[in-house]
Amino acid sequence: MENTYLLEKDFKELLKEQNAYREVISLTHWDMRTKIPHKGVEQRSEVVGFLAEKLHQLETSEKMKYFIDVLKDNTDDEIIKKTLAECEKNYERNRKIPHDEYREYVMLQSKSEAVWQEARQKADFALFQPYLEQLVEYNKKFANYWGYEVNIYDALLHNYEPGVTVKTLDRVFPELRKSLTDLLEFINNSNVKPDSSLLTAHFPKEDQKAFSVEILKKMGYDFLSGRLDETIHPFAIGLNLNDVRITTRYDEEDFRMAVFGTIHEGGHALYEQNLNPNLVNTPLAEGTSMGIHESQSLFWENFVGRSKAFWESNYDLFKAYAPDQFKNIPVEDFYQAVNIVKPSLIRIEADELTYPLHIMVRYELEKALINGDVPVKDLPHLWNEKMNDYLGIKPSTDREGVLQDIHWAGGDFGYFPSYALGYMYAAQLNNAFSKNKNIEKIITLGDYEPIRNWLKEHIHQYGKMKKPLEIIEDVTNEQLNPDHLVRYLTNKYKEIYKL
Amino acid sequence: MENTYLLEKDFKELLKEQNAYREVISLTHWDMRTKIPHKGVEQRSEVVGFLAEKLHQLETSEKMKYFIDVLKDNTDDEIIKKTLAECEKNYERNRKIPHDEYREYVMLQSKSEAVWQEARQKADFALFQPYLEQLVEYNKKFANYWGYEVNIYDALLHNYEPGVTVKTLDRVFPELRKSLTDLLEFINNSNVKPDSSLLTAHFPKEDQKAFSVEILKKMGYDFLSGRLDETIHPFAIGLNLNDVRITTRYDEEDFRMAVFGTIHEGGHALYEQNLNPNLVNTPLAEGTSMGIHESQSLFWENFVGRSKAFWESNYDLFKAYAPDQFKNIPVEDFYQAVNIVKPSLIRIEADELTYPLHIMVRYELEKALINGDVPVKDLPHLWNEKMNDYLGIKPSTDREGVLQDIHWAGGDFGYFPSYALGYMYAAQLNNAFSKNKNIEKIITLGDYEPIRNWLKEHIHQYGKMKKPLEIIEDVTNEQLNPDHLVRYLTNKYKEIYKL
Repeated sequence: MENTYLLEKDFKELLKEQNAYREVISLTHWDMRTKIPHKGVEQRSEVVGFLAEKLHQLETSEKMKYFIDVLKDNTDDEIIKKTLAECEKNYERNRKIPHDEYREYVMLQSKSEAVWQEARQKADFALFQPYLEQLVEYNKKFANYWGYEVNIYDALLHNYEPGVTVKTLDRVFPELRKSLTDLLEFINNSNVKPDSSLLTAHFPKEDQKAFSVEILKKMGYDFLSGRLDETIHPFAIGLNLNDVRITTRYDEEDFRMAVFGTIHEGGHALYEQNLNPNLVNTPLAEGTSMGIHESQSLFWENFVGRSKAFWESNYDLFKAYAPDQFKNIPVEDFYQAVNIVKPSLIRIEADELTYPLHIMVRYELEKALINGDVPVKDLPHLWNEKMNDYLGIKPSTDREGVLQDIHWAGGDFGYFPSYALGYMYAAQLNNAFSKNKNIEKIITLGDYEPIRNWLKEHIHQYGKMKKPLEIIEDVTNEQLNPDHLVRYLTNKYKEIYKL
Repeated sequence: MENTYLLEKDFKELLKEQNAYREVISLTHWDMRTKIPHKGVEQRSEVVGFLAEKLHQLETSEKMKYFIDVLKDNTDDEIIKKTLAECEKNYERNRKIPHDEYREYVMLQSKSEAVWQEARQKADFALFQPYLEQLVEYNKKFANYWGYEVNIYDALLHNYEPGVTVKTLDRVFPELRKSLTDLLEFINNSNVKPDSSLLTAHFPKEDQKAFSVEILKKMGYDFLSGRLDETIHPFAIGLNLNDVRITTRYDEEDFRMAVFGTIHEGGHALYEQNLNPNLVNTPLAEGTSMGIHESQSLFWENFVGRSKAFWESNYDLFKAYAPDQFKNIPVEDFYQAVNIVKPSLIRIEADELTYPLHIMVRYELEKALINGDVPVKDLPHLWNEKMNDYLGIKPSTDREGVLQDIHWAGGDFGYFPSYALGYMYAAQLNNAFSKNKNIEKIITLGDYEPIRNWLKEHIHQYGKMKKPLEIIEDVTNEQLNPDHLVRYLTNKYKEIYKL
């Protein structure tokens, strides 16, 4: 047998190479979404494609296979063990896809995103339809290559939320939907109608930014290991754990976009900034899943940032930056206004309560698509029907309907459920946190360190060392349970809408 | 013999790979100098090192050698022919350096830059000395690997200005020096003392930026293929010809830094934006040498941007952005003030006339270092003496003396002469341009298209298709000739200083 120490050393070199590609790919994505000049995009796309292929080659190389085989049963190092498992998963999944199909698919993705943008702008689904049909076919094919136990859609879910299946979602989503639509009905019938007009005062970008930065600092986001930029579609991205960037979008007529957006992305960023440094240069040095990532952003955005305690303690700070019109508005009115519930067509503008319903519309449609239960051409019609069923409103064009999100154009099937899962996880984590600690009191005092430390201790530090459901079960001592989210929303909105 | 068409196709694939690395390395450098958060630098340095090594491996690969050997005499494509010659040059030069020495040297460079920063801050040359000694030794060793005909320093010059040798420099520099120091003496004795106090009005950054952007647009810099950012040490960088970025630095108490700085970097950027698109994805798609690059930036900065015609036509625009104090200052006074000649210690703050003297100080010292004529430890002393000889002033600390520039810390020996060469080239180009066109009139009219087009036609489009001296001789019908610069400076300053 070879010398394990030397083998581990060589293996780490390979991981470092992979990581170098990952970091520049991330930098390139960040740059393309925030800084790149218009005409530079075309050439850059080729560069990104090249780098992605290099990384893919390393992940599926014979060398990688060799390390997996030889080291797997010969290491005592827990990080290396988990790293090997992660590498093996990637190796197996990637090797199952024939190289030429992968190439064609990558090209289809980038072409489809461009077509989708045009289709969305023109509100013309027919333009996008043939591309979406091909994307669905590829995803079905890949799902079959990867394999699954019960439902073909499980194979795609696995890419974003390992351990979560159609069975799980079909258990929790209907229950959640029922509770949310009941609550929505009560709210629609309530006599309380918070005044939303106060939200739309002209609020200069620079002032919104200054306030957002103050809040990010209070959250513990480290600006020496990150930065805040502007973009059209906000995101957080970790280049390495000392370079975790966030982006936001400013609407000078509606400060909520930037204020809650930066808190949300700040939540993502705290996850990546607080990973265990020993995971650096391994594929474990990132959030364990899309759902757990979203639980962190939503924990901060909703459970902290939209709480009454948060605004009671930060309203003076807010008013110091905000336009004069807020001067005479009591914090209670302000709190109610930023928590108005109102069904709307665009997912990313949805309120806390109706948001999960948007996700369910998408989940049911993509599950049906992948299972071959509905053809792509019926999507616009089905979308509008479901929106009407779940939210009581109907898009007048496909731009506000089936064409609104980029995910399918990028081939991301199985991704949407993470948003709702993350929300349920967040509520469940909030419940666990609140067993020993008074979150309201902490928020009122304005020093969020106990929250940040708790999240770091139980979630952030692990990166991919723990699977998503492992984290949830370890921290909350139960399985995924939608009741916590329902209870949270019920309590909150009963108070606001005097139900 | 193999099918040439297929071979060329494969060769182009290899070039594309190299180019992808070049583009991300450039992006990474840009990011590190403009955007990266403080703590992200360490990890990023490793990533850059990795990418540089990958590129180096491709440049020196057996595959590359194969293409060079097989294709060289079997292609009719002029671009491929010149590309092969460029690849062969890189192959030969890089292969001559043993791999482990290259690695050690790269590590020494990055370490030395860090030490230099500390030494500069503390004005403590002794800290930096041992590193500089090693850097000099490596460069001597490399120069011997590469080979040279007359002077060992020629081998280093070749990296930055192929075709230019010590013999050339020792012909033109003394002549130039004599003329400049004579002119300087006249100026020092002149009764005309332009009032410089007007330059230092507080000038808000945003206004300086707005004015600079207007000038860049007038120059023809394409913001759809570029962007302007802030940095400490301004630079221009071409990621690809549709993504050529410039950076600048704002001093709110001295607008000259940003205004002339952006014109300078804009001149570099125009070069890269106007390359022949057929050169994309070859190593020819960049400026042909440091000297020719500098000729472009200096052409715009000095021959356009510091001319009387420029300020006569742009002074109203300037005053629209500038603080009120300029309102009552006649353009003649303003023109004289931005052209004040005054020997100073810091190269990058030097005026047009004394700038080449700074370069000569460095050239003579590094030539002596590489030839083993002076030991590193004597540098501070020799530097101060030469400054006194050439400029009549002496640094009081090494921070303002031998430690001011980063070049040696990065191992860049042979680079400095490019700055003075670029200046002489620019004057020679200006002379050639002025034979058929009236540059003053064009500048006065404010539409610089004839200038931009002429530079594009004679210089920019070629990229590395032509060698630096080939360009100069083709355009000006003579060899490098310092007289044009001397005449330009003499005429200009005779008028300003009434000599």
